[in-house]
Amino acid sequence: MSRFLSDRFAALTPYVPGEQPRDQRYIKLNTNESPYPPAIGVLEAVSRAEVSRLNLYSDPTARELESAIAAFYGVNAEQVMATNGSDEALAFCFQAFCDQKTGACFPDITYGFYEVFARLYGVPAKVIPLDEQFRVTPALYRGAGGTIFLANPNAPTGIALPLAAVEEIARQNPNTLLVVDEAYVDFGGESAVPLIGRYDNVLVVMTCSKSRNLAGGRVGFVLGSADVIRDLRKIKYSFNPYNLNRLSLLAGAAALRDEAYFRACVNTIMETRAWAARALGERGFEVLDSRTNFVFAKPVRLGGKAYYEGLKAAGVLVRHFDAPRVRDFVRISIGTPEEMRALLDATDRLWEEKRA
Amino acid sequence: MSRFLSDRFAALTPYVPGEQPRDQRYIKLNTNESPYPPAIGVLEAVSRAEVSRLNLYSDPTARELESAIAAFYGVNAEQVMATNGSDEALAFCFQAFCDQKTGACFPDITYGFYEVFARLYGVPAKVIPLDEQFRVTPALYRGAGGTIFLANPNAPTGIALPLAAVEEIARQNPNTLLVVDEAYVDFGGESAVPLIGRYDNVLVVMTCSKSRNLAGGRVGFVLGSADVIRDLRKIKYSFNPYNLNRLSLLAGAAALRDEAYFRACVNTIMETRAWAARALGERGFEVLDSRTNFVFAKPVRLGGKAYYEGLKAAGVLVRHFDAPRVRDFVRISIGTPEEMRALLDATDRLWEEKRA
Repeated sequence: MSRFLSDRFAALTPYVPGEQPRDQRYIKLNTNESPYPPAIGVLEAVSRAEVSRLNLYSDPTARELESAIAAFYGVNAEQVMATNGSDEALAFCFQAFCDQKTGACFPDITYGFYEVFARLYGVPAKVIPLDEQFRVTPALYRGAGGTIFLANPNAPTGIALPLAAVEEIARQNPNTLLVVDEAYVDFGGESAVPLIGRYDNVLVVMTCSKSRNLAGGRVGFVLGSADVIRDLRKIKYSFNPYNLNRLSLLAGAAALRDEAYFRACVNTIMETRAWAARALGERGFEVLDSRTNFVFAKPVRLGGKAYYEGLKAAGVLVRHFDAPRVRDFVRISIGTPEEMRALLDATDRLWEEKRA
Repeated sequence: MSRFLSDRFAALTPYVPGEQPRDQRYIKLNTNESPYPPAIGVLEAVSRAEVSRLNLYSDPTARELESAIAAFYGVNAEQVMATNGSDEALAFCFQAFCDQKTGACFPDITYGFYEVFARLYGVPAKVIPLDEQFRVTPALYRGAGGTIFLANPNAPTGIALPLAAVEEIARQNPNTLLVVDEAYVDFGGESAVPLIGRYDNVLVVMTCSKSRNLAGGRVGFVLGSADVIRDLRKIKYSFNPYNLNRLSLLAGAAALRDEAYFRACVNTIMETRAWAARALGERGFEVLDSRTNFVFAKPVRLGGKAYYEGLKAAGVLVRHFDAPRVRDFVRISIGTPEEMRALLDATDRLWEEKRA
């Protein structure tokens, strides 16, 4: 660190994103991207004519995009705010709704960025363990005292918490904000969006990175009560009013408007997940019940790290987290059927080498 | 505000961006956009093939863009970090290099966002007055004690501080970081980039929004010592690792690579500025010496607000700041020659109405 960095960041350890090899030699099943291109409407919206208008600022109110989101979810536009990916949305939530007095609560096994955000904003974090089966225990959040961050379905486990349990947490903690991070909800989870009209303490964070095939477009959004959204707008306009560029605004709106393609991609990925999970099970993996576009699987014949490394040597990238409770597992994004067959073939070869 | 917002934001007043009318009926000379489209290379880089790859994450290291920036400025890639517009870069600087102990110093008349950033991050701000002619007095910064933020050329005045004076501030405050915000430097200012190799306390913030014709692409960047850039990367990776989308990365790199078009646009705007400033002077305006893509001008026959309103009614948008010392002025972005003639015609009509 330089001699100018504020002392409070001396121990800050940033989030480490999944490897993004630039040479594309790998079958990339490590960052939960969609293997399918964006909707045709996205290709049409990001036209040459629009690119030629990049000299003009984007609409800081993101009106067209936020209207498309509101229309899709059946809420008012004042209940929606678009962000530069959902990481920006989560960062704004930590900044706006946590402080020294009101910390942050989240599970021990969850999206690793929550801990980083808590450190970045100097917020005390209360870490609440998942149970033996990696499930959230709602009762443990009662009176926990800090803004609650729940990834649902959870990452990297893929396990979903039923909506009734999410509602229980919201109801039992009426003076606490519950931020539900639904990055993966479209792949079989139950969304908490229906709760936002009834509970002013529920905020839902979503992304176009996974189920809308726009990871490279950086479009996230938040749904909540108009009051809480107004707070988030205050942060956005005090940080980066033009936080979304013109092309991402267009791409996001077009993606939201093509429900048929969205459903088709999501369904294909869920079907691929079903047989791929079964095939892994047949090869002796313990595969957690996934409601996401990845599976969290424990290769019983090799440690998680050795399996990850073996696959990488074979040209297949998956993600391994060298952390307590999960280091025996790997997270495998659901790619195309061909990519999943390549993963299984590479796995079979690793098992044979192991036997030999 | 909702009952969940941290108390420390109760009095936060966000930055107010210039009006962005959606209907485009206005001649828009209010947000300092370039009136010219991006370089042809930008149109080629943001191809349909690239749009179809938006399902994949962008490169979090922004390698290609940062290399193009480094090549243009003749520095190493470790001395460069790209950001989602330069507002994000400035926000990161306030967050990283200011705290309760080390506040922020900036002029009383400058980019209004500095004050907002200071409040957002809870940083004490020392406001140092410009002299009677709206010039920075370097001696006043000596031992001021906080990270110094200088827009050079300054906004909304357009006045440039000579490089020797910037160097004097850097030399006289060796233990203080000097952040030089050079959003407008290409329009006739002297860049502090040559200082960054010699002074580890100089950091330069730039943007592609003005001289690179990419306001809607949201591409900013920072140039500084490798140590200070490393600090900023720590903040970026703790906030939003994929802060730039795929298309902006491509657009920014292409814009940086077309030096001929960049020079041509900048020269045209400077020529237009020269005759437009003269024409305003002939109409009795006091026009400050601008080294930017706008002029700050005092319409002596009408108050700043009345002139702004008269122009708006006539279909021409300029920017008026209702703040001490500058409320008699308006800031007029330099548009195309046709747009500037329309501004002058509207002004002449206002003067005639006033006389009648």
